[in-house]
Amino acid sequence: MLHYQLQISMATIISMIGIVLSILMGFRISSAYDRWWEARKIWGALVNDSRTLIRQLIVFTLETKVTGKHLQSMAYRQIAFLYALGQRLRGQPDFSVIASFLYTDEWDDLVKRENFPNLLLLHNLYAFKKLESEGHITNFDMLRLDETTARLTDSLGGAERIKNTPFPIPYSHFTSFLVHLFAMLLPFGMVETFGYIAIPIAICVIFIFMIIEQIAIEIQDPFSNKENDIPVTAIANALEIDIKEMLGDRVLPFRNKAHDGIIM
Amino acid sequence: MLHYQLQISMATIISMIGIVLSILMGFRISSAYDRWWEARKIWGALVNDSRTLIRQLIVFTLETKVTGKHLQSMAYRQIAFLYALGQRLRGQPDFSVIASFLYTDEWDDLVKRENFPNLLLLHNLYAFKKLESEGHITNFDMLRLDETTARLTDSLGGAERIKNTPFPIPYSHFTSFLVHLFAMLLPFGMVETFGYIAIPIAICVIFIFMIIEQIAIEIQDPFSNKENDIPVTAIANALEIDIKEMLGDRVLPFRNKAHDGIIM
Amino acid sequence: MLHYQLQISMATIISMIGIVLSILMGFRISSAYDRWWEARKIWGALVNDSRTLIRQLIVFTLETKVTGKHLQSMAYRQIAFLYALGQRLRGQPDFSVIASFLYTDEWDDLVKRENFPNLLLLHNLYAFKKLESEGHITNFDMLRLDETTARLTDSLGGAERIKNTPFPIPYSHFTSFLVHLFAMLLPFGMVETFGYIAIPIAICVIFIFMIIEQIAIEIQDPFSNKENDIPVTAIANALEIDIKEMLGDRVLPFRNKAHDGIIM
Amino acid sequence: MLHYQLQISMATIISMIGIVLSILMGFRISSAYDRWWEARKIWGALVNDSRTLIRQLIVFTLETKVTGKHLQSMAYRQIAFLYALGQRLRGQPDFSVIASFLYTDEWDDLVKRENFPNLLLLHNLYAFKKLESEGHITNFDMLRLDETTARLTDSLGGAERIKNTPFPIPYSHFTSFLVHLFAMLLPFGMVETFGYIAIPIAICVIFIFMIIEQIAIEIQDPFSNKENDIPVTAIANALEIDIKEMLGDRVLPFRNKAHDGIIM
Amino acid sequence: MLHYQLQISMATIISMIGIVLSILMGFRISSAYDRWWEARKIWGALVNDSRTLIRQLIVFTLETKVTGKHLQSMAYRQIAFLYALGQRLRGQPDFSVIASFLYTDEWDDLVKRENFPNLLLLHNLYAFKKLESEGHITNFDMLRLDETTARLTDSLGGAERIKNTPFPIPYSHFTSFLVHLFAMLLPFGMVETFGYIAIPIAICVIFIFMIIEQIAIEIQDPFSNKENDIPVTAIANALEIDIKEMLGDRVLPFRNKAHDGIIM
Repeated sequence: MLHYQLQISMATIISMIGIVLSILMGFRISSAYDRWWEARKIWGALVNDSRTLIRQLIVFTLETKVTGKHLQSMAYRQIAFLYALGQRLRGQPDFSVIASFLYTDEWDDLVKRENFPNLLLLHNLYAFKKLESEGHITNFDMLRLDETTARLTDSLGGAERIKNTPFPIPYSHFTSFLVHLFAMLLPFGMVETFGYIAIPIAICVIFIFMIIEQIAIEIQDPFSNKENDIPVTAIANALEIDIKEMLGDRVLPFRNKAHDGIIM
Repeated sequence: MLHYQLQISMATIISMIGIVLSILMGFRISSAYDRWWEARKIWGALVNDSRTLIRQLIVFTLETKVTGKHLQSMAYRQIAFLYALGQRLRGQPDFSVIASFLYTDEWDDLVKRENFPNLLLLHNLYAFKKLESEGHITNFDMLRLDETTARLTDSLGGAERIKNTPFPIPYSHFTSFLVHLFAMLLPFGMVETFGYIAIPIAICVIFIFMIIEQIAIEIQDPFSNKENDIPVTAIANALEIDIKEMLGDRVLPFRNKAHDGIIM
Repeated sequence: MLHYQLQISMATIISMIGIVLSILMGFRISSAYDRWWEARKIWGALVNDSRTLIRQLIVFTLETKVTGKHLQSMAYRQIAFLYALGQRLRGQPDFSVIASFLYTDEWDDLVKRENFPNLLLLHNLYAFKKLESEGHITNFDMLRLDETTARLTDSLGGAERIKNTPFPIPYSHFTSFLVHLFAMLLPFGMVETFGYIAIPIAICVIFIFMIIEQIAIEIQDPFSNKENDIPVTAIANALEIDIKEMLGDRVLPFRNKAHDGIIM
Repeated sequence: MLHYQLQISMATIISMIGIVLSILMGFRISSAYDRWWEARKIWGALVNDSRTLIRQLIVFTLETKVTGKHLQSMAYRQIAFLYALGQRLRGQPDFSVIASFLYTDEWDDLVKRENFPNLLLLHNLYAFKKLESEGHITNFDMLRLDETTARLTDSLGGAERIKNTPFPIPYSHFTSFLVHLFAMLLPFGMVETFGYIAIPIAICVIFIFMIIEQIAIEIQDPFSNKENDIPVTAIANALEIDIKEMLGDRVLPFRNKAHDGIIM
Repeated sequence: MLHYQLQISMATIISMIGIVLSILMGFRISSAYDRWWEARKIWGALVNDSRTLIRQLIVFTLETKVTGKHLQSMAYRQIAFLYALGQRLRGQPDFSVIASFLYTDEWDDLVKRENFPNLLLLHNLYAFKKLESEGHITNFDMLRLDETTARLTDSLGGAERIKNTPFPIPYSHFTSFLVHLFAMLLPFGMVETFGYIAIPIAICVIFIFMIIEQIAIEIQDPFSNKENDIPVTAIANALEIDIKEMLGDRVLPFRNKAHDGIIM
């Protein structure tokens, strides 16, 4: 009896690996979720700051000679910015949806350049500067527009950061390796106890860990053109509606509907 | 004896699933709580910035020709903004409570539009701009009012974000599935040991996980018109009292009371 | 032997509930601590912004005709704000300690109003506006004073938020229920193994969970007039000393001492 | 056999306490680390804002009649601020190292006052105000210097907050008590299984928990004049080098070296 | 039987140490990851604020007599700042890549100084001040440029903080010690149960903990010139491309490619 008590059984070893794996997986999924939620917050900030920017433009140019058409061109450039950023993050080369929001020559020029969305922000700031130097808006107004643009730049960079920075590779490789190691060890100790029932039970336990890993992989890259992405197109579409409404349009675009339960 | 030690028992398997489930559920409830608390903070920020906005308006227009009535119309629009946002987040189409805070024509126009609260912010900024261009407030004052409005826009967008972004669906489906799998496996190993007592004990263990899941579901959507919501109406009511008091009113509205222990 | 291995023992069930409970309690105490620390940070911000406000006032009115007496009246109102907020958060109706920092008529008026501290901020901003319109301070100075007041408003609202928002009730009820369920199940399996020693051991294990719950309850409401509160009176007292020192006073108030090891 | 399965063994009880203790200790050490890292961030912010302040001063007074000597006196006061704050947080009454950075009369006056570092910030702001009223710097420059000083005030208050707020006492007492309870229970069940080897093994297990607690205690108070402190003197020394370099000095102070591997 | 139940087996002890170790390691890896992600965010902020700074410069000097060459010199200094900071954080003394972005005399002077990147920020602010005093940009523009530079200073200091502050030494030493203790205890209880298979199994379990520790060590110091570093050179290269594009360059540098899968 004494002898028995000094021994460690296979069950203890398996349990221990199981606990380590659970804790590592718990951290894995929670940091994947944090990336996803941070990406969502960044897109939220893009919407908020776009609304603020257009609201500022509308109000600052009130009772000036700035035409509604001029105002619209700047507001549409901001809408184009959001669509363009979404397409770029997802690596989709088709920017044609954006063309309708830009002047033809601007579009022709920009489409050949490197960082499309970054240049759109610059172009809008050019337009604001022109308003200032022509006396339509004050220094104070320009200050505020520049501040809002700086925040938009932060969100642009934040989205690129999440897109371009993979989750630390040694960590994701190691947890993946551990799941497979565990998958190989587990059935060994089970065959004799359970007989043929061992196979479905072992598969079941292993699947649990593999599914968790898979969910983490899905969520951690929220701009990968898959169904659990941040719905960047739908968000840009919602912003388009809001901005057009603020400009006074009465006929608004349709809201993006879910296709097969998926909103992009 | 040696043989025994190399085997894994059903208890080990069940325990392992139990531990994985506990860790997943721990993360589930903690991120549900984070959503709820973030929503609460956003509503706190809406209150703070509304108070700041009205305080700024009152003080900036001191010793000017701006009438108390004019001041009141802007302050009431801000109160309307908070009530309207609350109703919209909860998907309640009845905006009649807001009508009393707005001019009749403004109300008639807004009620048909898409993003009601967003337009209220725009309308108030129109009013501030008018104060500036008529010389009642300085550029500096306008700068500050615009900054406060930008923060209100951030909170508006933040609340919409939490409302419109469900917790990642694969994650919530998977934990739900795991609870049910566990519920099916558990009784198998218990019947013989416990006899008929197995049934209540198994139910009891399973219920624990199901209740945790249910609590997470309740808390993670804090604008769903249920009893564990953020009490948006009560918060808007408290703001109404504070703002009216700041305007100098001596007769203040009644504070919302709990009905059956629930404050909405 | 095989048969035995397919069975789940009472110990496994109890362990599993114990693990779930441990994880839930771990989250319980960590979110209680987060509330407490957030409350402490808010009171820290109140001190920082009060110091900044008074420093700005002193420096902005340097070499102007603003008298030390006038300066003092605004600084004392700020001290009164902190004392009043502390008393209000703790639900203590005795505001007499504040009276000495305010003009008699201001005190007589305010004491009957709803949100005492909020109005004190408004009154100080009135005083700042008067300095601006009389030409003692510049638009830039007013801008800065208004910014600091806005941050004070945020902290005021943040403290009220923590005070008025209980920890989600279903969660705290459920963990409490689980502790009691566990307390009832545990002794069942122990009596025969341990004999009479079972009673103290079971009580001991149960007490551990109950004490953890009790600590969470104590910490999660940091303005409840108990010994583990944020020491709001001591903090206001320390601020009073700092501000009087900044005003040039050489005789400073005594620092609050601990009574029976407790600082309030 | 059935009977056996309904019983809970001593090992189950001990394991359960061990798990609870592990989770509590995990939270204990993680919140101690958070305090330590927050303190480090605050000292980082003090360095950043000091650099920004001096950079602003240098650039704003470029091409004015402000002498290098005058500039130096303000920059040195800022260095003195950091040394003084470090000494005060550690409760070291020897401020003599600071004397060389201040005018003799300023030093003689300040050394008798309560909140030394807070007054240094005030004195520098006096100096900035003088620059403004003498026309050397613009209102815009003053605005920026005031903003930087406000951030320094926040960091000053943040460091004081961590210094003066102990980790919640019931929590730290309770975990300490639990470690000791565990230490007393553990050997009971071990003597017969292991014989005399029980003693070193039990001591070993208990030591693990005691060391974790000790590490938490060390880290949670990062201004306690011990070897795992934030190295406030070394940080102030590094800032001194940076600021002197920015002022154009070519002969810079030596960098603090580690004594016995410890940097203070 | 009773007797047996009161005893604690070696497996219980080993399990308990395993659980403690798992929780400590979970915290270890999660805080290592937090350091790494914070460092990545800081480099993201450096990119964002650099883009904002150059965008501001371009727009503020539009329609003035500031030449493209002059603009370029300031933009290149900003690029040099990022390369220099990267080299300095990694302790690489070769700053030659930076020389091409600076004037020869500026380069000759700076290369001998202490805090190279900090002085580059100062020099750019000199240039901005010159633009202001020569009337090319307004006070408002200068205010904004100064704000952006202050944020760059914060990021500079933040990166230095992570570089210079090791993870608390007692904590990392203790977890390392615990892994080794565990490695020594584990095989003792296994030899007899498993025979020679004990050796690979024990090695396998121990390796899991050692690899986790190793990953934490790799990730926690993200500027250590290893393959899991923040890719500071690649980020600076990407910024160079963006800035040159904003300046209107049509021929852009090549993007850094991965060598053997590693991007630095």
